[in-house]
Amino acid sequence: MAQQTRTYDVVVLGAGAVGENAADRAGRTGLSVVVVEAELVGGECSYWACMPSKALLRPGAVLAAARGVGGAAQAVTGGVDPAAVLARRDAFASHWDDGSQVAWLAGAGIDLVRGHARLVGPRRVEVATGDGALTLVARHAVVVATGSEPVLPDLPGLAQAVPWTSREATAVHDVPGSLVILGGGVVGVEMATAYADLGAAVTLLVRGDRVLTAAEPFAGRAVGEALVGLGVDVRYGARPTGVTRDADGVVVELARVGDAAGERVRADELLVATGRRPATGDLGLATVGLEPGSALVVDDALQVTGVDGGWLFAVGDVTGRTTTTHQGKYDARVVGDVVAARFGPGGSGAPDGAAPWSATTATADHAAVPQVVFTRPEVAWVGLTEAAALVAGHPVRTVQVALRSAAGAALAGDDVDGTVQLVVDTEREVLLGATFVGPEVAEMLHAATIAVVGQVPIARLWHAVPAYPTTSEVWLRLLEAYGR
Amino acid sequence: MAQQTRTYDVVVLGAGAVGENAADRAGRTGLSVVVVEAELVGGECSYWACMPSKALLRPGAVLAAARGVGGAAQAVTGGVDPAAVLARRDAFASHWDDGSQVAWLAGAGIDLVRGHARLVGPRRVEVATGDGALTLVARHAVVVATGSEPVLPDLPGLAQAVPWTSREATAVHDVPGSLVILGGGVVGVEMATAYADLGAAVTLLVRGDRVLTAAEPFAGRAVGEALVGLGVDVRYGARPTGVTRDADGVVVELARVGDAAGERVRADELLVATGRRPATGDLGLATVGLEPGSALVVDDALQVTGVDGGWLFAVGDVTGRTTTTHQGKYDARVVGDVVAARFGPGGSGAPDGAAPWSATTATADHAAVPQVVFTRPEVAWVGLTEAAALVAGHPVRTVQVALRSAAGAALAGDDVDGTVQLVVDTEREVLLGATFVGPEVAEMLHAATIAVVGQVPIARLWHAVPAYPTTSEVWLRLLEAYGR
Repeated sequence: MAQQTRTYDVVVLGAGAVGENAADRAGRTGLSVVVVEAELVGGECSYWACMPSKALLRPGAVLAAARGVGGAAQAVTGGVDPAAVLARRDAFASHWDDGSQVAWLAGAGIDLVRGHARLVGPRRVEVATGDGALTLVARHAVVVATGSEPVLPDLPGLAQAVPWTSREATAVHDVPGSLVILGGGVVGVEMATAYADLGAAVTLLVRGDRVLTAAEPFAGRAVGEALVGLGVDVRYGARPTGVTRDADGVVVELARVGDAAGERVRADELLVATGRRPATGDLGLATVGLEPGSALVVDDALQVTGVDGGWLFAVGDVTGRTTTTHQGKYDARVVGDVVAARFGPGGSGAPDGAAPWSATTATADHAAVPQVVFTRPEVAWVGLTEAAALVAGHPVRTVQVALRSAAGAALAGDDVDGTVQLVVDTEREVLLGATFVGPEVAEMLHAATIAVVGQVPIARLWHAVPAYPTTSEVWLRLLEAYGR
Repeated sequence: MAQQTRTYDVVVLGAGAVGENAADRAGRTGLSVVVVEAELVGGECSYWACMPSKALLRPGAVLAAARGVGGAAQAVTGGVDPAAVLARRDAFASHWDDGSQVAWLAGAGIDLVRGHARLVGPRRVEVATGDGALTLVARHAVVVATGSEPVLPDLPGLAQAVPWTSREATAVHDVPGSLVILGGGVVGVEMATAYADLGAAVTLLVRGDRVLTAAEPFAGRAVGEALVGLGVDVRYGARPTGVTRDADGVVVELARVGDAAGERVRADELLVATGRRPATGDLGLATVGLEPGSALVVDDALQVTGVDGGWLFAVGDVTGRTTTTHQGKYDARVVGDVVAARFGPGGSGAPDGAAPWSATTATADHAAVPQVVFTRPEVAWVGLTEAAALVAGHPVRTVQVALRSAAGAALAGDDVDGTVQLVVDTEREVLLGATFVGPEVAEMLHAATIAVVGQVPIARLWHAVPAYPTTSEVWLRLLEAYGR
């Protein structure tokens, strides 16, 4: 087959949301850009993560909200319709067809190469395409946005048992009668909720004493309790020792700490959601002096450290610095602006020594990363947890109020429960972080994100009046709890 | 009957939410405080406005949300249950019993006098109580928080037809078969929505060419169209010429501009929602040199202008400066702090020349008043409309995006539609105002309020990352529309 070489200003590896955004942003100043993608253009988030998972969760959420309001509850006469939920999910996953995303790339003037890409030296990428090998030469920059891949724990029999990862769980076509989930992180608790809604008997195996350990402890405890309320069998301190699959499904063997007899959990399917790692194992990193399989460590301009010449950048999960689509897209905007500033018209080719919070500095990655978990209750947080703030040496005071302390929360639902917390830097009197737990708090988070990013002082926040009667009036309760 | 005199540091007239907050805040530094209330402690908002109206609206909103999501819709087999809606509303109106509010005042160390209060001279208030006249002498300050009252237009036959005001509409016990509403403001459109949900045939008579004229034009147009979708007969350019009531209900005569024949609208009940005026007609204002019936004009410390001695303050609707509970409570917090600062321990008794955005200056009243309308779609805005910003002489650029431009909005509901707009000061590059129109945008507003109040520059807002996939991602679309 033919050996071809093409040269672009910028070569982007990975056409997920993050790669697409980096390509778009870099290309806007006239740089020529190509993206390489081995799977579907649109990436994990579009087909096997955010979109389909939220599509699976939303029907149960709106029914729960309606069931929780007197005067509406009697009109809700059943649960979700699994077939209709899956059909709607199919639409949000674009039926796993990337035609519209390919068209978007074309419209943005970005070339697409399909195939697996490997670095073969500085600024050089080789792509194994259907037509043979293609070499892409980057005049200025290579941006790696290949994301992450699930990690399967080293558990006897696991691979042979053909477990689900988040891909199979979000793309399911036949809802199993029962599902055992290994891992109490975001994927674990969201899928536990979704499959409980879809009618599966769900067992959630959690290693520690609570779910969502990245969040404030009260958030994880609330979600764990709520899962039990949804009928999920939540097992804390679970230590799987082996997995087998037989004609009836999957069996997970559990060791009980301090308990001589083991335990067996049986289900039709097993979802492993114990973590992800940067997808750098087969990227040719060794050809540029980097360690295959490791995260691509970057500075705040998203330039990979330890590589000479200022040509290698990385964004998204592959950096180990962010784990969410939105924060990856933020980094993508920054790297796009960095590449355009350095290599576009009038660019110097070198770092510009930009200050924090400038357009070419991803400062928010350290100070204000938002995270939303679409469980019931929802959990949303931004910035530092109390523990992280203390570890970072900030002078901290934490205030916490019940969501129901706002009249609007009680109006929203008869059994509405939840908690909101602010972590305040007592010296500068600005917010370091905020956590919301409760129904439909996802849309309340951005107020906190703006307050954290804007470093709006508490004294000024007193002038930001929440409308009555909205749930947002918890802001007033939080300020009162902090004191003036 | 006995004539009694009692002396307090601060006398507050009106124990609505605004008066309660002013009393509480002033009393916290040890000043003695009394509040006088002729009706229920808790005021309009608790019994005949915000609380009951939102209680009437919420059941329909959650059912509409559930009907709008494939996979959930089939489980919704009817509309709201009017009896259950009214029962829930009764609970949120505390069954029109102010016992808990009275207990709250007592717990806060605030005395309560029930009766109608009139000023009888500087610092002196006479209250007609059940036990005779009581004179209250204020050592330092009188704070007027008597709110507002509905204005009935001068329409032949209107008074004899015994129309509803917002009180009867929110406190209804028997839903009429049909309702004609005069006025397309907040009360008019919210009650049109609520009564359509409750099964009444609703006709909405609007004077101009759209509803919600205080909001951006696109917001009013969207709500007007949506009301038609709910089955409301919306008549624009309506000019009522007379009202009659007979055994079958109420008839409103309409003149049609450029139409020789008049028109008659018949309904079981008529709700007049054409506006409110400050409740100052019977307050004894003439005894302190003020015009009865006029708004009590105040400065940013909420001190009434044109009265010597610095003892008279006013907050809430009675000032003509605010029309909402939340903004009235904001002013109440400010006046409480002003009174405490001037007359509490160490106070000078005189204005302290505080800067804008200080604790004793109600700056937000000019820059950042939020308003939420709980229609379907909801409308929420803060700060200046585009027109108001232009009139005020700001260098303005307005950007507008469709709510559906955020993937999260489409996930939230299959037919979600709406618009979000920012009004930007192009010189300082800060937000002057924001308007949200769409389902459940009420909780999205506070982000804009914090951005406006915090004067967070656009360049910094780019670092405030909205979580994916939430509807809040419209913030990203707005920033993209504005450009970097």
